[in-house]
Amino acid sequence: MNREKLREFEPVFYPKSIAVVGASPNPIKFGNRYLEALINAGYRGKLYPVNPSGGKISGLKAYPTVRDIPDPVEYVIVSIPAQHVLDVLDDCAAKGVKVVQFFTAGFSETGEEEGCRLEREMVKKAKEGGFRIIGPNCIGAYSPAHQMPYGPMPMLGEVGTVAFISQSGGHAGRIIEIGMRRGIRFSKVVSFGNGSDLDSVDYLEYLKVDPDTRIIGAYLEGMRQGRRFLQLARETSKTKPMIIWKGGNTDAGAAAAASHTGSLAISDTIWTAVLKQAGVIRVDSLEELADTLLTFQHFPPFLSENVAIVAGLAGGGGGESVSSTDACASVGLNVPPFTEETRSRLKGILPPAGSILRNPLDMGGVGGVLEILEETMEIVVADPRIDLVIVNEHLYQLDMWVAKETLEAMNDIFIRFRGMKPLVIVAAPGLASDERTALERKLSDAQVTVYPSLDRAAKAIANMNWYYRFHRGNL
Amino acid sequence: MNREKLREFEPVFYPKSIAVVGASPNPIKFGNRYLEALINAGYRGKLYPVNPSGGKISGLKAYPTVRDIPDPVEYVIVSIPAQHVLDVLDDCAAKGVKVVQFFTAGFSETGEEEGCRLEREMVKKAKEGGFRIIGPNCIGAYSPAHQMPYGPMPMLGEVGTVAFISQSGGHAGRIIEIGMRRGIRFSKVVSFGNGSDLDSVDYLEYLKVDPDTRIIGAYLEGMRQGRRFLQLARETSKTKPMIIWKGGNTDAGAAAAASHTGSLAISDTIWTAVLKQAGVIRVDSLEELADTLLTFQHFPPFLSENVAIVAGLAGGGGGESVSSTDACASVGLNVPPFTEETRSRLKGILPPAGSILRNPLDMGGVGGVLEILEETMEIVVADPRIDLVIVNEHLYQLDMWVAKETLEAMNDIFIRFRGMKPLVIVAAPGLASDERTALERKLSDAQVTVYPSLDRAAKAIANMNWYYRFHRGNL
Repeated sequence: MNREKLREFEPVFYPKSIAVVGASPNPIKFGNRYLEALINAGYRGKLYPVNPSGGKISGLKAYPTVRDIPDPVEYVIVSIPAQHVLDVLDDCAAKGVKVVQFFTAGFSETGEEEGCRLEREMVKKAKEGGFRIIGPNCIGAYSPAHQMPYGPMPMLGEVGTVAFISQSGGHAGRIIEIGMRRGIRFSKVVSFGNGSDLDSVDYLEYLKVDPDTRIIGAYLEGMRQGRRFLQLARETSKTKPMIIWKGGNTDAGAAAAASHTGSLAISDTIWTAVLKQAGVIRVDSLEELADTLLTFQHFPPFLSENVAIVAGLAGGGGGESVSSTDACASVGLNVPPFTEETRSRLKGILPPAGSILRNPLDMGGVGGVLEILEETMEIVVADPRIDLVIVNEHLYQLDMWVAKETLEAMNDIFIRFRGMKPLVIVAAPGLASDERTALERKLSDAQVTVYPSLDRAAKAIANMNWYYRFHRGNL
Repeated sequence: MNREKLREFEPVFYPKSIAVVGASPNPIKFGNRYLEALINAGYRGKLYPVNPSGGKISGLKAYPTVRDIPDPVEYVIVSIPAQHVLDVLDDCAAKGVKVVQFFTAGFSETGEEEGCRLEREMVKKAKEGGFRIIGPNCIGAYSPAHQMPYGPMPMLGEVGTVAFISQSGGHAGRIIEIGMRRGIRFSKVVSFGNGSDLDSVDYLEYLKVDPDTRIIGAYLEGMRQGRRFLQLARETSKTKPMIIWKGGNTDAGAAAAASHTGSLAISDTIWTAVLKQAGVIRVDSLEELADTLLTFQHFPPFLSENVAIVAGLAGGGGGESVSSTDACASVGLNVPPFTEETRSRLKGILPPAGSILRNPLDMGGVGGVLEILEETMEIVVADPRIDLVIVNEHLYQLDMWVAKETLEAMNDIFIRFRGMKPLVIVAAPGLASDERTALERKLSDAQVTVYPSLDRAAKAIANMNWYYRFHRGNL
């Protein structure tokens, strides 16, 4: 059964050959962008542009139809007007294609009878022709291990264990983009738009057994097989954390969803209750989604409820201590007092004013003194009351006070302690600079998660804790 | 009365001369950092380092005590250990100083009797000596028009009409920093720590009549004169929007606040109710504070409840439309349908697929075609149902598809239309680059507000609308 499912999805995420119908030399056309992106990403399979005029496109021989391609074709990308798609599907059936992905829109999402009829017709042809459909009205599959880019997006991110399925092509694109910047490493992503044939349930069935996927994220606006989806989610979430961002929560949003992917609104209260029962984490924004995926990717699989906050590295951090505590407490994290031993050890090395030897710990501006920082980290990490350490680093402020090499050395200290207890860095956005990006990048490459605010860090950690509490029996 | 108040605070924000007690040639000492920052910022008044050893510090003649300075001194910065401060105050009294600001901590915020006693003693000496105290345990005043930097922070932001008062030096520093990056322009900022003498009420009394201040923000953890503060807030907020971020909302946070500025906890429910009655906007994070200040700074003073969202500039934006609508609806903004006329005009210029001619408008990826963008903006801005336009620009994605000059030209179009109806840009953070910063900066200089997410834009706009609804009778 598992093997069968893996085989079934092989041509979706690892196609040996791709034809682009609607390929064109015109760089404004999406057909051209899809083809160029595949070439630039170094896609390893064979590529066939399809265009009625034939000739050469992007240096490759173009064929008038899919049928005319001399070799086998597994995956077909369609980017032509909706009224011509049925003919293409006849060609695909004749050719023995496995998967057809439609960038083309104008089907059931329009709410108009003609679009709905066309979409039904497409699915019928797929069933008869023995192939599957991704979409329509979507960007398609992203498979970095196979050097298969995300639609027209030319670059590939690193390969990892996070999968993402999305009814929105735009949101999927943005999570991939954020992943490249913040270090979320994907096993695969798919944007499936209207989900006329392969739908959320199908992708989830596959991801459940996919050995390369450990964490599953989703953006959904609605679903056709609610009961089946929830049963599957309940089973899947036992071993693979599932994080769902649901669009169309408000009445106005639900109306927009109806015209986006033709999704029917399900009451928000029902969604919330039902996802919770299934042990699925529900998030409310793209940012929270990214933060939570990153947290699961980087953290060991157990509760991190008792946090230490190390603040005031660059200067006094009293107000920061207060709002950090608020941010943690408001989502159910504890900021317990340090043990007596911790306090007396800290007293020996930190300046008296500023540092109040409480948790949150205010370093009183001496974070740039490497020996003190290292010893402070050692003492805090050793405290038996602490599960996890949050360092409020304020990279940008520090950058004004300490030398570049010191900043590097400070981060090296954090990276080292990361192996002893889970550790996250909060670095509020400052002026953009390549050096700052490089600093953040180095931390994230070392699996130290960097969040832009303590509120966001706390929420992501709380989401993760909720998951481990819920599934404790299964772990 | 108003004149008197302005005169009283003249030496706080426009001192003609400053002495730094604790100035030292050692760059690790804050006394040194304060002095260097004043020099670097080009502070226009006279500067006097004070150090028992005399000699020269940072190229200026140093005096053993404040008393030894031959000329008048208005403002004294104290950065020496707490046990020596009373002697300094005797010197200040003898010298006729107007304001003494204590970076020095270790007073009532420690909760220890000795610290509390010292602080009471300081206030007594100030009353007898006829001068005022800022702090202790604070960074002090920032007055960009007077080229007076924020404590040790060497750079000055632009001068504007937003004032900020803060019990936390760190939070005040960060809002100034964010202001420099995102274009919040301050009239003045003060961090007053324990507020032993001059407290939130005093600063507010001044800001109420300060002709250079139009918008007032605050970070507070507690207050001594609650009734007086609220009366004052009620009066002030009628003409100057007030935005308060309250720290110590949770029990754990309140405990941290007690040890930060010695503030007593006031129940969060009471705060919420009472601020609301006073017509004061309550925000919950530094980010929301910055977003809301920026919105007030840039927007005309009336309701903007009906928003148009222009999305999908770089690619299809269906999911974006859904979550944008959710973000607006969940905070009470309307995303009304366009008029028939608007829809038929848009139909004439936008591609059929993708653009669904609804609000949110999905441009279907043609945002980079300048004529289409310009015409679309013109049509949307002209719709009589629309108060405000949100453009979901995705600068980073666009940057992949369109030429730099096109991107510049697109932003010029937004800047032009900004004059006709309030307009904001949402640009999700992408890879940091100096060019991208410059693009954002150009928009913010043209008073087009840039937010990093639609959720944050919507919340800030909703905060502003709440204010104008509340105070409608007074406008």
